[in-house]
Amino acid sequence: MEYHKINQTDLDNLRKFISDPERFITKPTTHWDHDQFGTVKAMPDLVIQPVTNEEVMHVVKYANDNKIPLVPRGNSTGLMGANLAVDGGISLDMIKMNKVLEYDPESLTMTVQAGLRLKDLDEYLADKPFMYMPAPAMHWATIGGNVSTNAGGLKAIKYGVTREHIREIKVVLTNGKLYKFGSKAVKSSSGYSLRDLIIGSEGTLGVVTEVTIRLYPRPHKSINAIIPFPTLNDAIRSVPAILKSGVVPTTVEFMGRKVVKLWETYAKDEFPIKHGDGFIIIGLDSFTENEWREELNETLEAVKPFKAEKAIVLSADSEEAKKIWKCREELLLAIQNSTPKMDEIDVCVPINHIPVVLDRIEELEKQLNIRIPNFGHAGDGNLHIYLCSDDMTDEEYAKTSDKVISELYKTAKSLDGNMSGEHGIGYARANYYEDFYGKDYTDLLRKVKRLFDPNYIVNPGKIFKP
Amino acid sequence: MEYHKINQTDLDNLRKFISDPERFITKPTTHWDHDQFGTVKAMPDLVIQPVTNEEVMHVVKYANDNKIPLVPRGNSTGLMGANLAVDGGISLDMIKMNKVLEYDPESLTMTVQAGLRLKDLDEYLADKPFMYMPAPAMHWATIGGNVSTNAGGLKAIKYGVTREHIREIKVVLTNGKLYKFGSKAVKSSSGYSLRDLIIGSEGTLGVVTEVTIRLYPRPHKSINAIIPFPTLNDAIRSVPAILKSGVVPTTVEFMGRKVVKLWETYAKDEFPIKHGDGFIIIGLDSFTENEWREELNETLEAVKPFKAEKAIVLSADSEEAKKIWKCREELLLAIQNSTPKMDEIDVCVPINHIPVVLDRIEELEKQLNIRIPNFGHAGDGNLHIYLCSDDMTDEEYAKTSDKVISELYKTAKSLDGNMSGEHGIGYARANYYEDFYGKDYTDLLRKVKRLFDPNYIVNPGKIFKP
Repeated sequence: MEYHKINQTDLDNLRKFISDPERFITKPTTHWDHDQFGTVKAMPDLVIQPVTNEEVMHVVKYANDNKIPLVPRGNSTGLMGANLAVDGGISLDMIKMNKVLEYDPESLTMTVQAGLRLKDLDEYLADKPFMYMPAPAMHWATIGGNVSTNAGGLKAIKYGVTREHIREIKVVLTNGKLYKFGSKAVKSSSGYSLRDLIIGSEGTLGVVTEVTIRLYPRPHKSINAIIPFPTLNDAIRSVPAILKSGVVPTTVEFMGRKVVKLWETYAKDEFPIKHGDGFIIIGLDSFTENEWREELNETLEAVKPFKAEKAIVLSADSEEAKKIWKCREELLLAIQNSTPKMDEIDVCVPINHIPVVLDRIEELEKQLNIRIPNFGHAGDGNLHIYLCSDDMTDEEYAKTSDKVISELYKTAKSLDGNMSGEHGIGYARANYYEDFYGKDYTDLLRKVKRLFDPNYIVNPGKIFKP
Repeated sequence: MEYHKINQTDLDNLRKFISDPERFITKPTTHWDHDQFGTVKAMPDLVIQPVTNEEVMHVVKYANDNKIPLVPRGNSTGLMGANLAVDGGISLDMIKMNKVLEYDPESLTMTVQAGLRLKDLDEYLADKPFMYMPAPAMHWATIGGNVSTNAGGLKAIKYGVTREHIREIKVVLTNGKLYKFGSKAVKSSSGYSLRDLIIGSEGTLGVVTEVTIRLYPRPHKSINAIIPFPTLNDAIRSVPAILKSGVVPTTVEFMGRKVVKLWETYAKDEFPIKHGDGFIIIGLDSFTENEWREELNETLEAVKPFKAEKAIVLSADSEEAKKIWKCREELLLAIQNSTPKMDEIDVCVPINHIPVVLDRIEELEKQLNIRIPNFGHAGDGNLHIYLCSDDMTDEEYAKTSDKVISELYKTAKSLDGNMSGEHGIGYARANYYEDFYGKDYTDLLRKVKRLFDPNYIVNPGKIFKP
């Protein structure tokens, strides 16, 4: 693409749209040259922090009219480089557009600006009878960022992902106009759902400025329990049996002894459960305690054939329980701590095919001499797979991780899986997209992109190659 | 649009694609000239009943190459004329494409051809531990038809609508190629969700041939209860209070004494509850009986301030309970029976605004001298509103119902509602679309239509005017 490089005239013109000079940053610092995808950095020419829809509309229209790349940015917790200004231009940093616009319990909705962080949303709702149900691990992410990746999290089995909890979005398209996609009403059979097209589009079709979420009644009881198994394979193979029993857990996570050991090193602590090499953590929400106890009993019955051992309820106020939960929460840090560099894959496969992916990982570890610890959402078939550089040179690591990524995408594709369950494709994986989804399909996405963004200015270079 | 009229050469060419002459109907009967939208009839020039993806691909490509309109058709239970061949051409009747392709309990999915009826799907699953959760009232509808309108039904509050239960669809686009949108995997953050764009598009973007649904664990306990209130307004105003209490019902329906009386006339029977003018029917699914009993208690507590009277549990095996349930199920028939002609509106508004719509209906009844009985899904804000012709002339009825439709759409729009919660826009309401959603928005949909269907051949004239 041929873009226009921002000059003094552009700065003078753009500055007029932004009321406060502190939100118009002509000399961006390194804060804006990266997100959580560590491998690539890219400095934007200009950072703008809008606070109103009107500011966004002016800036987007100007960028489009003048062919300046414009990269929307939340709190940069993304793992796939979707926030990188790889073609320069404007970084549209949404973090100050963070107001709660309306709390409307009568319609079971709440409307917020896109830059509000999940953490702040949860705090706002803490004393209210409702929750925003999706539970992505990264609480510092913005709701706009969540919409952009259709973020998942720990509770997707029962409650679905971001998509299921968004009633309405306001979006500025490249013509600079503000559009309303969806409404506060629960159901719609009223034409193409452009709302659902924007959700998951990683900022490549327009800029989401406001989000109306669904308020979900806060469950009266929520508990988690851990079940040890002799092997990780036993643990994972038990999951379809749980789901067939009629129990609908909120959460079914898996982790193996290997990552638990990494945590022991990291935390300088001991994991309380000494037996078993594989673990399932199951979460249950209910109205009464009796209900979750019965559901847990049924779960334990269902996993018996897989040699499950005695379960430990984690909401109990014991030191043991706290430590186990702490381990689960710190797994990512523990893996990060074990290696100089790390990259991550989050393929999502049909739930019964997780063991196939784990077998392939073991083969690749041996074959390519790389350490690939992992854990993940067993109930969704969504794995978090970490490629550790350890003592490889940068060159070796780049080559080896490219090989592993390609191979695991091949495996996921052969199992009718998706490249990413919740992290997105971003810049980091755009080169792999067409191989995974084929030319016909990718060409369709390209046409959709062109329809919304004929000048290719919003978040260029992301998801797939132009 | 300028279309090509099917001639003998076309018939000869098209016939080659269809193996069985009985599925190639050159002299369509009145069976194919209408759906459940009674007002308009339109005879296709040719009916083709495909049984394989390949047959669909050939026919769609031929229609596109030769600019012949092609109207996909399920079991024609649609209420908005989306099945009408208003420009002639080919009626692509999917009803014989009705195989179960795969039952895959390990991945919690099932794949069927688009022409399979919900009734058959439910029967297939009857002895299995899973359900297809959405529950549209019309069991004779096909799953493809459900996808085309994003059908809703009685259980949307807890389980969502069709959209939330579709993992993957296969779609033939106008280029004659078969595409796979989505996968068996639960989560995706892997590019634009074209699956969600097709869901609800009423056959105007391509032909859905296969659908992979989500298998949901069958609840161990399911009950319904009816709660009488002094007025319908009391009944409806209690609904947000139920949902704020932490109870998550599967179903919250409302009906008033007026429609109950129509049922009494229709059924030549007496409704067992003599007191109260408004009723809420609440459904609850749970793992144990204790759970739903506690949830029901909490519900009754929540609705007390709205003068609720004693609830009656409908799953009890009493004559009284059976009769009440029969009444709810026969309301549509009862209304139909009360008038020579009928048209229906199914606007969906934020749940707390149902009373505003009901007030507007009462005003319109008086002002325009028309009877407008109604009932609906109180928990979703989705009303079923019936315009009765009674003793009006056809001309008077056409004029009056157009006025009522326009006015109620204005009301729904002012409340941030949608034109249709579950029936779709079809042919019947396409003229009202741009007024409701505005030119900018409708133009965007037109662009999407053009992208998928540049010759405007699949289901022309539906949803919005070209």
